[in-house]
This record gives sequence, structure tokens and C-alpha cells, in this order.
Amino acid sequence: MIEPRTLKGFRDYLPESMIPREKLIATAQRVYRSYGFSPIDTPAMEYLEILTGKGSDETDRQLYRFQDHGGRDVGLRFDLTVPLARFAAQHINDLGTPFKRYHIGTVWRGENTQRGRYREFMQCDFDTIGTRSVVADIETGLVIHDLMRAIGIERFTIHLNNRQVLQGVLQKQSLADRSVPVLRAIDKLAKIGAAKVAEELRDAAGLNEEQIAAVLGLAEVAGSNDQILKSVENLVQGNAMGEEGLARLRDIAAGIVAAGVAEQRLQLDVAIARGLDYYTGAIFETFLDELPTIGSVCSGGRYDNLAGLFTRQELPGIGASLGLDRLLAALEELGRLEKVRTPAAIFIPFFDAARRNDYLRLAAQLRERGWGVEFYPEPKKLGQQLKYADQRGFRAALILGDREWQDRQCQVKDLTQMRSEQVPLDDSLQALEESLRRVLRSEKNEE
Amino acid sequence: MIEPRTLKGFRDYLPESMIPREKLIATAQRVYRSYGFSPIDTPAMEYLEILTGKGSDETDRQLYRFQDHGGRDVGLRFDLTVPLARFAAQHINDLGTPFKRYHIGTVWRGENTQRGRYREFMQCDFDTIGTRSVVADIETGLVIHDLMRAIGIERFTIHLNNRQVLQGVLQKQSLADRSVPVLRAIDKLAKIGAAKVAEELRDAAGLNEEQIAAVLGLAEVAGSNDQILKSVENLVQGNAMGEEGLARLRDIAAGIVAAGVAEQRLQLDVAIARGLDYYTGAIFETFLDELPTIGSVCSGGRYDNLAGLFTRQELPGIGASLGLDRLLAALEELGRLEKVRTPAAIFIPFFDAARRNDYLRLAAQLRERGWGVEFYPEPKKLGQQLKYADQRGFRAALILGDREWQDRQCQVKDLTQMRSEQVPLDDSLQALEESLRRVLRSEKNEE
Repeated sequence: MIEPRTLKGFRDYLPESMIPREKLIATAQRVYRSYGFSPIDTPAMEYLEILTGKGSDETDRQLYRFQDHGGRDVGLRFDLTVPLARFAAQHINDLGTPFKRYHIGTVWRGENTQRGRYREFMQCDFDTIGTRSVVADIETGLVIHDLMRAIGIERFTIHLNNRQVLQGVLQKQSLADRSVPVLRAIDKLAKIGAAKVAEELRDAAGLNEEQIAAVLGLAEVAGSNDQILKSVENLVQGNAMGEEGLARLRDIAAGIVAAGVAEQRLQLDVAIARGLDYYTGAIFETFLDELPTIGSVCSGGRYDNLAGLFTRQELPGIGASLGLDRLLAALEELGRLEKVRTPAAIFIPFFDAARRNDYLRLAAQLRERGWGVEFYPEPKKLGQQLKYADQRGFRAALILGDREWQDRQCQVKDLTQMRSEQVPLDDSLQALEESLRRVLRSEKNEE
Repeated sequence: MIEPRTLKGFRDYLPESMIPREKLIATAQRVYRSYGFSPIDTPAMEYLEILTGKGSDETDRQLYRFQDHGGRDVGLRFDLTVPLARFAAQHINDLGTPFKRYHIGTVWRGENTQRGRYREFMQCDFDTIGTRSVVADIETGLVIHDLMRAIGIERFTIHLNNRQVLQGVLQKQSLADRSVPVLRAIDKLAKIGAAKVAEELRDAAGLNEEQIAAVLGLAEVAGSNDQILKSVENLVQGNAMGEEGLARLRDIAAGIVAAGVAEQRLQLDVAIARGLDYYTGAIFETFLDELPTIGSVCSGGRYDNLAGLFTRQELPGIGASLGLDRLLAALEELGRLEKVRTPAAIFIPFFDAARRNDYLRLAAQLRERGWGVEFYPEPKKLGQQLKYADQRGFRAALILGDREWQDRQCQVKDLTQMRSEQVPLDDSLQALEESLRRVLRSEKNEE
């Protein structure tokens, strides 16, 4: 007998976690598509040289690598960005630009599981490649906005920055060559506070007091978005990169609001940097107002050159990634995940063994009309079947015994309210559908 | 510079192949859910002993295997059935029975690519576990029926058999101990014809003439389903297994038809065996009437004990698998795949640079009403933008220049018919939506 078990850091998804997961994925697909982003997919396995080309030391270490049957060195993808770079370099002449794609796929990292991390997880990215237009920056914010609302989250804040503003402040303070340690310190602001960041800027990056004040000045900028733009004007004044960055930041924010995003949902945040050497323009993070501590649930930004390792063609772009696992954890913590273990709402107990085909026919007729219906496969005791229905979380049961079939009547039982009503059963199923709409508040199988 | 390329036997999915693929997957999910099948997922990677436990020599040889960072022997799943067996053994006490699940996931096999096979492909399975009820057998046929129709295929035939009938004939001919070579020969009937099968039965399996006649008698059974049932009666008469099998076959067919499946879509086919030692009851295959040579696009059957390697608990069940790649190839061959490279139907050219935020707002308003809209990110020449729209396969374009914005008018261009009409643009967007419905025949973003 072999022990049935999963590898450390890997998980099975049972129905009650998979149902909301699949729903979330379908929602993301729908929103991405509504902007003209097209789905793509790439292999889980790539030539090792493609995966190690750009990866950091950390991702190189975490890479699942092996030799395939032909003796090739291969690895499993650890994100969807490296495969996108390879894909774009390979196909961009066929695809043309601008190229808007989304990619929802599994990635693998041999992470230290003690940090609560998994070794297999899903990423959910969208990117617009081949354009520097501010429209693509604005749309990134709009997609995030529509995503959150489609998921059912109304209270969220999109944080927006432009790396050029940071870069301008550093240039003005003659710190352009020290941007790596400085940005690394700034990224810790929310975690360790301004005093500790100042210490790090002094000790690790060697900044003087004026430089520290200027850098921390960015973090102290506060108030309405207009006030923030005003304050930053002084910080970047006289530096071309900073002034250009600020003008663009203003333009992105204006476009997002003009397209209909409520102003309080957009927060300029000139201190976010998101990593060190990748982003070069707009930066997005998204926080849930009711649970900000869980971190950003959708983040991304603009980059100058996606696929420099694979092609001489310069491919600028912008993209972001929905944090599926984090968002599901947040929804669970906020009590917003329904505990259902069935994707069908209606349950038909197998009550009268002689009527099997009648039940099957009724279930088929309801499915044809768009309802999700499960028919219990065995004519067991009704109590036992209703217990099963309760455990699964069905919302309605249709009770039909021999007498009901003879009288062409159906008992519609609301399983959440424990109420029932009798309706006539005719070929149109009209009365039955009306009753089901009342019970399920018109929630059909497809949402 | 690293050469951008995929591994042999692996493929990228570009939008024009991924869009129909994603649509097909969504359709399968919707149909499975409508019967109360729940989604699950399992890791791509499993302990090697789990994957090699049941696999045949062939799958063992094709397995991608390696050591993980902790020195464990691991492998990539080569199907979704072995993971289901492990999953069921591990969780069945939490899940309860009957347990109905679907699983759509990627699997990997180090196949010989010369046979046109890929090393990475997707499986799309549904199973009902923990019940021997004939209802689960009938429902398997109903799911296949609904799947085909939901995909848009009207002309298809579901072939149905019961392995017990075959088994009964073999028992009656004292061939129970030779079922492996006999079934292997029978499985070749469609490919090599009766004469060659007879030869193989004689030479490889050692059957005498009477035995060969009885076995081939199964293949010669023809006529309407009623006539077939009648003929098989004689073949199994006096053998308990065969008679029981025939009664059940009759019952399954009756249930499928009673639930509303047109009789000509169900074909009893007592010669199909589908592999050698796995299935023990009902067997399903599905053929497209317009392209039968491509083979079965949805197949499956009943088994007695799913997880015998992992648990002492006996888990009977029945399931089938949609052949995603084969079906997509068939739809392509039949000219039923739309050649679109955009999932949004409506295109808005960026015509007047000064009106950027107006375009963004209009696109947002249309998306809020359920339309898929792409706004071109750069104010290039209109001809260039319309060329892009044409390459992508957009269906409608909304042309708005400065004059249109001033007059609150919008030109709705039907890109497939090369016709356009002018509609007033007010806040309700009513006239615009009516025009779009005419052009797109009410095809909104979600289908």
C-alpha cells in the first residue's frame, strides 16, 4: 500500500477552495478580455538557459531543473514574465504591436516553506507590449479598478507612482549611482519607519543629512493627490527626468479619473519603488481598505525593454499581476467566501426508485434552461440524501415522491431557509422556474 | 543573445489558438458544473512512487522524473487519473460519497514526437466516485451529450458498450483467462478489419474456430439499438455476467434516451473495449459524424476500484475525458474555428489626440455595460489603426473625430461588412448600443 500524500509545499485544491478560485480566474479572464487582452500560454518547461538568463541568484537557486529524455537541461518556469520575454522575442513579428496579452498559469519555485510560501502557485498577469503610450499606463489602472469591482470588492485603493520621479530626486541629489541601496531602503518605509530608513540611508548607502532629508521628503509627502503633486514639484524642480516623470504621473492620474474611477480610490504614493532594477515608469499597487496589512493584491509597472536577452528589438511595455492566493486569503479573512462544495444550486433527491427516468428527464429539462441540477444517484432514505445536500451547500431541493409525480406537483424546498412550497409541474416548467427564481434569487448556474 | 525557442514537443499558444481553447474549457466547466461536478486540482509534481505505482511500462518510461531540492524522487503527472486515485484515497472521508469532480489540468509525457504527439497537453476529466448506481452511468452519457451541443456540435454519435457483455461472451467460450490478448485484438477491429483480427485471435491468442466466430459475432452485431440488444441476447444467453451486463446496457441506453437524448445520437457498440484491464462496466466513445476518422473526442467508462494502491477502501466509479486537442483539431478541420486574435469585438481608434480622455471614458462606459472594447493606445494614422483592427479580427469600430465629439455623434463601422452608420452619442448610450447590437448580432463580451 502506497501512502497517499502530497509533496511538502504543494497542495490539493478541494472543491470548497477550488470553486471560489475558479470563479476568481473566470472573473479576471472576463475583465482582461473586455480590454482586448488576449490569452496566451507557454510551456511549463523551458530550456534552462532561458530561465537562468535573467533570473536573480534567488530564482536560480529555487529553480526546479533536470535533464529531459533527450539529455537537454530544462527547468520549470518560476514566473510568467521570463516566458513572456522569450515568447515576445520569438513571435512579435507575427503578433504585431501593440500586443496585449494575459496569461494565467502555474509556476514553481523551490521556496523555503517555513515562510508560509508554496512551491507551486498560480500567476495571473496582463501586459501591453510595444508601446510607450500613456494610454497603456492609464488602462493598467482601469483594469485593476474593474477587476476589484468585478470580484465584488468596493473598498480598495490603487497606489500610483512613477519611478522617474524617484529617479529625478536621486539625480538632483547626485545619488543616481547609489539608486540600488537607496531604493532598497525606501522600500522598507512602510515596514520599519522613517527613523530606521534614515539610519540605513546614512550607514549603508552613505547619504549626508541633506540627501537623507530629500529622499525622506518623498515619504513625507501627504494630503490630497493635488497637494501631493504640488509638493513633489518642489522636490524635482530643475531636474528634467523628475519634471517629466511628474508631468506623466499627473497625466496618468487624470486619465484614470476621467475614465470614471472615483478619486478616493486612486492614491498617489511617490515613495513606492517595487523592487530595484526592473520598473522604469509607472508603478501600481492595490490595497484593500478593510485589510491593508495583507499587502498589495495587484501590482505592476512599466518597463523599457522586456526581452533584451532574446532580441535586439526594443520592447517597452507595462503590466501587472493579480495576487490570486493573497486575494483569496483576504476574501476568506473578510468572510466573503461562500462555503459551498457544489457548483450546482439545485438538488433532486432520488425518492421513488420506480421514477428514475422521470427525475433524469426533469433534471435535463432544467439544465437546458440554464439551471445547475444534481440528481442523487441512489434511492436512499430521504434524510440521508438531504444530509448530503446540506453538507455540499445546495440551495434548493425538489422533492418528488410517487404522489407528486401522479399529481404533477413538485415541492420546492429552500434549504437555507427551511421553507418549502408546492408548485404545479407542467411541460413549460414555468411555475417551477418562478419558484426557483424566488428561492435562489435568480442565481442561475452561470454567474 | 539567447535564442528564443521552445523545447521539442512543447508549444506556445498564440491568441488565435488560445482564444478558442479557453472558450472550449469554459464550456466544459459550465456543463460539468451544471451536473454538480465540482472542480478540484492537484499538484503537477508528485512523489515518484505515486506515479509509478499504477502506470504501465510505457508511462513509466515517459515520465519526467528528477530529484527536488530536498533530494526527494519526484515526477510530473502524466494523467489526471493517478492523481485522482491518490487524492480520493487521501480525502474521501472529508469529501463523502458520491463524490463528483472535474479536473482540467496539464499533464506531461516524454512521448516520441514523431508520432505527432506533444509532450505537454491538457486533460479535461469528469468522474463520479463512490457509487455503482446506473444513474452515474446514464449521467456520463448525458454530460457527453450536453458537452457536444454546448460546443456547437449537433451531429455526433455516442457509442456505448458494457464490458460485462464482452466478459460474458469470453466466459461462455472459456476464454476468461485469455481476455487480454482477445480484447487487444478486438480493439483493432475498426483499424484492421475482421479478417486480420480473426488471424490474430487464432495465431496470437490460440482461439479455435468456434471461439473466433463467437468473438467476431460481437463485431458483426448490427442494426438498430433494439436489434443489437436482441442479437446480443443470444450471444450471452446462459452466462450470468453476460446477461447481467446486457440488462444493464439496456437500462443505461433507456435512461439516456428517457432524459431527452435523440435516439440516433446513441449507438450501442458491443465490440468496443477501450484498453485492457481498467474498465469493468459501461464504456463510452464519441464520434463526430462529419469527421469520424479523427477518432473518439470524449471517452471513458466504469471501474470497480479506483484507488486500490493507496487505500483498502473500495472506490467504484465512472468517468470520461474530453479530448481537447483532438476536438480543436476537428473544429479547425471542419472550418468551425473563428480566426480572431482579439477577445473584444469593438475597436476604438485613437483619432483625435486632444480627446484622449473622452475615448477612455466612452470605452469604460461600454465595458460597464458588458461590451468588450479595445482603445488603440497611440494617435497614429487612421489607416494604420484600422489595419491593426483588421489583422486582429475586430467586428466593429467606433470612429470619433473632433467633429463627431463636438456634434455628439459616433460613426459605427461594421468591419466585416464594411458598412457604417452614424448614431447620436448621449449619456445613455442607447442608440450606440442598439447599433452595436445590430452589427454584432448582440454578441457581447461574455458568451
